[in-house]
Amino acid sequence: MSTVPALLSLLDVEHPIIQAPMAGTSTPELAAAVSNSGGLGSLGVGASSVDQARAAIRATKALTARPFNVNLFCHRRATADASREAAWLEYLAPRFAEFGVEPPSALAEIYQTFVGNDAMLAMLLAERPAVVSFHFGLPEVGWIRQLRQAGIVLLACATNSAEAVECMRAGVDAIVAQGVEAGGHRGVFSPELGDDGIGTLALVRMLVRQGGLPVIAAGGIMDGAGIAAALQLGAAGAQLGTAFVLCPESSASAAYREQMKSDRAHHTRITATISGRPARGLPNRMYEMDGAPALPDYPIVYDAGKALHAAASAKGNHEFAAYWAGQGAPMARELPAATLMSRLVEELRAS
Amino acid sequence: MSTVPALLSLLDVEHPIIQAPMAGTSTPELAAAVSNSGGLGSLGVGASSVDQARAAIRATKALTARPFNVNLFCHRRATADASREAAWLEYLAPRFAEFGVEPPSALAEIYQTFVGNDAMLAMLLAERPAVVSFHFGLPEVGWIRQLRQAGIVLLACATNSAEAVECMRAGVDAIVAQGVEAGGHRGVFSPELGDDGIGTLALVRMLVRQGGLPVIAAGGIMDGAGIAAALQLGAAGAQLGTAFVLCPESSASAAYREQMKSDRAHHTRITATISGRPARGLPNRMYEMDGAPALPDYPIVYDAGKALHAAASAKGNHEFAAYWAGQGAPMARELPAATLMSRLVEELRAS
Repeated sequence: MSTVPALLSLLDVEHPIIQAPMAGTSTPELAAAVSNSGGLGSLGVGASSVDQARAAIRATKALTARPFNVNLFCHRRATADASREAAWLEYLAPRFAEFGVEPPSALAEIYQTFVGNDAMLAMLLAERPAVVSFHFGLPEVGWIRQLRQAGIVLLACATNSAEAVECMRAGVDAIVAQGVEAGGHRGVFSPELGDDGIGTLALVRMLVRQGGLPVIAAGGIMDGAGIAAALQLGAAGAQLGTAFVLCPESSASAAYREQMKSDRAHHTRITATISGRPARGLPNRMYEMDGAPALPDYPIVYDAGKALHAAASAKGNHEFAAYWAGQGAPMARELPAATLMSRLVEELRAS
Repeated sequence: MSTVPALLSLLDVEHPIIQAPMAGTSTPELAAAVSNSGGLGSLGVGASSVDQARAAIRATKALTARPFNVNLFCHRRATADASREAAWLEYLAPRFAEFGVEPPSALAEIYQTFVGNDAMLAMLLAERPAVVSFHFGLPEVGWIRQLRQAGIVLLACATNSAEAVECMRAGVDAIVAQGVEAGGHRGVFSPELGDDGIGTLALVRMLVRQGGLPVIAAGGIMDGAGIAAALQLGAAGAQLGTAFVLCPESSASAAYREQMKSDRAHHTRITATISGRPARGLPNRMYEMDGAPALPDYPIVYDAGKALHAAASAKGNHEFAAYWAGQGAPMARELPAATLMSRLVEELRAS
């Protein structure tokens, strides 16, 4: 019994295709193009201020009357630790020196978690995007209730059975099952407790058999055959991120696009040294951190990573970037989002 | 265009279902039950002597007139290194001491790779099993030619695009695409060069799109929906190992079966500390090897691991075992192999 129609109706979309939020790479233009093509476009505002998030939501509304999704990061608030931060900066200092700059003198929590961010909640309740999704965990149950009462459909990411149970108990509408193939940040609630790294095929089937909520498959899905396979596993829909990176509507830089089309795409890796939480991307020197000291908290580590990338890229070096990509990267297509959506829909129909 | 009929015809089987070879867990009874049910049963003889392998093949022939598969390990021959081996035994000594025994005084290459094993080749050419498959790499092209000329169908395992190209160039008939979900030894040709750990969904789709040979999906597939998903990705068939571990026909011990049915099944991990090559199994103390020195070669490490397990299990402790399992382990069913095969076929038809 297919769960696809129920998800289509829940999300009020035509096709069971969600463009992954991809904070830093998604844009109002990308989200709107996907939504206007009958899928669910997404904005990743996890690294945005309330004002930036509101502006992105309004910009998207100006481009589409269709539903779209706004993704929030629900990590535990960072704990500053001056000695860990100093050790990390000291470790990175020789790399900064390669580009003739000093490392920053201190690191900051460069953006706020949604958990406890009342102003962000108020903005969401005021703007009422059709869909809101959570990554890295969940906000408190009272907030989930308020968002649902505002008519917002809620999705939450799970990387294993236990997280899926938490999502269900918290009262969200559907689960994004993120397999280890996926690019960008692993949604793992508590990376310090370990990560089973479950592949999309095994995870989706396990969460579908576990039952309870519609499952949206994510990780390694790049074309209609991939979407069809996810639906065969019992998923109600599929979420694709890496597949959209090369769309002209994404904010991926020229260097990012070039690397996505290179052999590196075959060798994505997961590291926590870029941001402080494990994330999968195209391999570069940020993945070569032998002998690194204990990392500061997420996203404090990211402050250092972004500074190092800025120093390097100012000199034309793109080897310290966060070019997130999933294991399906070699299959990414360079097409306008609307064209890509048509292809995905055609391929799905044909399969 | 489905490639399933071509694979069924190539393997001369009724269903696109292969029971994974699982050296140490597969038995002639298991392989024969699967083959007699219209799938392709397999024997894993990678850790067997020529005499043991011949005996297993003959025992299987006595139980089925249908085709079955014989799997060989094609790793690079181990290089003995007395100092690395001594350091490893010294590192393990406190663990042996917990069970009141001394570690072995030396370690051996406890079984031979198929590469260069003329006696094994001669045995295969004499016994002519319908199918032979390779893991960890490939034998020389001349041997592949001889086996094919003897009418034997050849499969080889690949974990990435480059290995798949090697398999194709070597002249095998089909590729087993082993995703990171899979239990047991990763098929990676050269683990010392790294492992991209590609998930089944992404890998299968990538190898299918790469083209050239039929692809058999392996890793995380536990039921008919999983098989159907693999076929949607363009695979011509599916190989299931973990799904068969709980069959009464497997040689899995009572302790192994018990752990397979426990919560550990949700947390499989990959380690090289058991055998010397990365393999996925149920977590136990063999996966807790912080500060371990450089490992001796595969399978020399396995000699130590087996000795430690023997010492521990003699005292009723099963925390040093090699209980291989894939990420789909929580979905394993305890059914006779023929019943499991019927279920898989029904589920596949229904999906």
